[in-house]
Amino acid sequence: MTLRAAVVAVGDELLLGDTINTNAAWLGTELAAVGVEVVVSVMVGDDLPRLAVVLARALEDADVVLVTGGLGSTTDDITREAVAAAAGVPLDRVPVLEGQLRERYAAYGATLTGPVLRQADVPRDATVLPNPVGTAPGLRLEVGERLLYALPGPPHELAAVAAPVLDELRERSGSVLHTRTVHTAGLGEPSVAEIVERTVQVPPGVALAYLAGGGIVRVRFTGPDDALLRPLADSVAAALGDAVWGRDDDRLDEVVHQALAAREATVAVAESLTGGLIGSTLSRMPGSSRTFRGAAVVYATDLKHTLAGVPAPLLAAAGPVAAETASALASGIRERLGATYGLAATGVAGPDEQDGNPVGTVYVAVAGPNETDVRALRLPGDRERIRLLTVTAALDLLRRHVTP
Amino acid sequence: MTLRAAVVAVGDELLLGDTINTNAAWLGTELAAVGVEVVVSVMVGDDLPRLAVVLARALEDADVVLVTGGLGSTTDDITREAVAAAAGVPLDRVPVLEGQLRERYAAYGATLTGPVLRQADVPRDATVLPNPVGTAPGLRLEVGERLLYALPGPPHELAAVAAPVLDELRERSGSVLHTRTVHTAGLGEPSVAEIVERTVQVPPGVALAYLAGGGIVRVRFTGPDDALLRPLADSVAAALGDAVWGRDDDRLDEVVHQALAAREATVAVAESLTGGLIGSTLSRMPGSSRTFRGAAVVYATDLKHTLAGVPAPLLAAAGPVAAETASALASGIRERLGATYGLAATGVAGPDEQDGNPVGTVYVAVAGPNETDVRALRLPGDRERIRLLTVTAALDLLRRHVTP
Repeated sequence: MTLRAAVVAVGDELLLGDTINTNAAWLGTELAAVGVEVVVSVMVGDDLPRLAVVLARALEDADVVLVTGGLGSTTDDITREAVAAAAGVPLDRVPVLEGQLRERYAAYGATLTGPVLRQADVPRDATVLPNPVGTAPGLRLEVGERLLYALPGPPHELAAVAAPVLDELRERSGSVLHTRTVHTAGLGEPSVAEIVERTVQVPPGVALAYLAGGGIVRVRFTGPDDALLRPLADSVAAALGDAVWGRDDDRLDEVVHQALAAREATVAVAESLTGGLIGSTLSRMPGSSRTFRGAAVVYATDLKHTLAGVPAPLLAAAGPVAAETASALASGIRERLGATYGLAATGVAGPDEQDGNPVGTVYVAVAGPNETDVRALRLPGDRERIRLLTVTAALDLLRRHVTP
Repeated sequence: MTLRAAVVAVGDELLLGDTINTNAAWLGTELAAVGVEVVVSVMVGDDLPRLAVVLARALEDADVVLVTGGLGSTTDDITREAVAAAAGVPLDRVPVLEGQLRERYAAYGATLTGPVLRQADVPRDATVLPNPVGTAPGLRLEVGERLLYALPGPPHELAAVAAPVLDELRERSGSVLHTRTVHTAGLGEPSVAEIVERTVQVPPGVALAYLAGGGIVRVRFTGPDDALLRPLADSVAAALGDAVWGRDDDRLDEVVHQALAAREATVAVAESLTGGLIGSTLSRMPGSSRTFRGAAVVYATDLKHTLAGVPAPLLAAAGPVAAETASALASGIRERLGATYGLAATGVAGPDEQDGNPVGTVYVAVAGPNETDVRALRLPGDRERIRLLTVTAALDLLRRHVTP
């Protein structure tokens, strides 16, 4: 049986646009993975009568209702009251919870004020879901044949308190959804889709989705039977060839680090229009110092010579935005920083053209022990997007040189 | 009269968590600014019967309903049908729109298939809202005493089509909300709140909010009467003193660039744990090459000497994570890159401690023509958060040296 869920996020800050509702997206992904279909997801303010209406509708729409937020200690936190009202039960103060709160506050030497104790109030017959990383516990109630969970709003508390909830729902749905994802770079979504649709016939019960963003296109198969998904992903990966840089949970920067580590190799970066974004991406992963030496952000043209070793005559002749300059940046930084590979990017992020090069003109280059490779790109979008697409293009070029 | 609005975002990708609903946040901010209160914001899939239910409820809840998404050309785009059904009118194909679509496709040499023409279908008596940046126009319908707008889902199309809608709503609400914001860095939210609450009494009709994130705490006053807000913001800014780096739409990197430009000064960066994030932030703004020279990402310890000029004996004695090393990085990079100011950051982003320095130990330093200044920080959070907080701390330290 597929369980249907409704998600309700509580907080004025969501409606005012001060906070983006990432909890709904996170719950959507997690619920899909345990075979639960979200049919509606609602944001509502710190407004008790309105939350009551929204909860009543959610209990109509779905088998399971998950409420996030509004469980804190201030007077505008109204989820406990609303949930109790929806279930038609009173709130009881639970002495064990009150004791824990008093202990925790005493340990921090903080003053416990009256409203804080509201976190010890629990709708009658509700189960308390422990919160290992915060003070507001979650709640689990049965409302007729429906299940209602109240979960804390801060994302790391939500993740901690929701873990056993997701386990329970996985068991109840009995229809876990599996996913197999193939990650590509260097091809547009229409090209990827054309190759995929030429290669595989998607059987009933399997959903195919293309997720595109930041120069990466992901092909995702979702369905209850992993034995169907795996060969689909394998066929698609084979057909997409060297555009494929990873599968499932892989991340491009991690794939690059792993490939470098396997060769006992390192990388150094010379970047211009990206201003440090390539370096910051290559230093995201813990332990990246094993394979990432450092970078020269050669934003001013003269630094391309003084910091990254581009020969002055070449720089004068070709200019800062040119294929030869990108190659020279890659080999120059490789040598200066003593790395196995040099990686470089130069180009025009906009909004204005530069020396006759239109916005989006970008060159990425890699220099290795035996080779130099440079790619000329014409990237679409605004300044921010061109910079992000350049990062992906640079990492992907390096990936093509270091993965087997 | 305060208008109440309901926002409805349509698309399976929102419920599955593949796309985060940034449109709702954007609309929330924009609607608040024109005096419209969002009372509920709903996400629903590409599911005609369910969208019909959601629209009927929204028309019950609010004076104005804004639907985003589901206006495209594929068969899973169902917003036109649902909106027509909610208004109880049929869909008519509009010849002018059909002609525009055919022209646009011909101009691109693309084949126009049947479903694309659905974008020329309009609920009877609806007004078409032109889409200057895409093919799907928006729609405006009156449903009894309610107003219903259907707007495209891609954020840049939404912004373009919504502009005249927001103008209309501003006029109707007649109660534009003004905001005055004071931006601070270097103080925690509780300290900011304490100073604010000691300094001003918030009069009725004015809302006070604290927005904190990434090491920045914003104090925001909102209300219909700007004459009340301005002196509040001025008093708070005076009381918060040099923690204040900007007002209203200011951005920290832009404030730094403007202050540097006013002194005809430049900055160069030497950064370690941030891996390029400081440089990438200082190169976000168009025209930043005027004041940002470049950066050395001295991730490997030896590069702090070879690339940024930290004396080898100092580096050996103090280690890579130390106040003296941060100072030497700032003055070294200032000299090597020929900048007016050198800015440096070194520290431990984690997850593991380094040479006995616990995770979160960070030093930021600035070197100017006449001074060197270094700050020792103990930053909370995980690797990503520590890196982001370091960027803010570094920019804010520079800001304190370059603003009058």
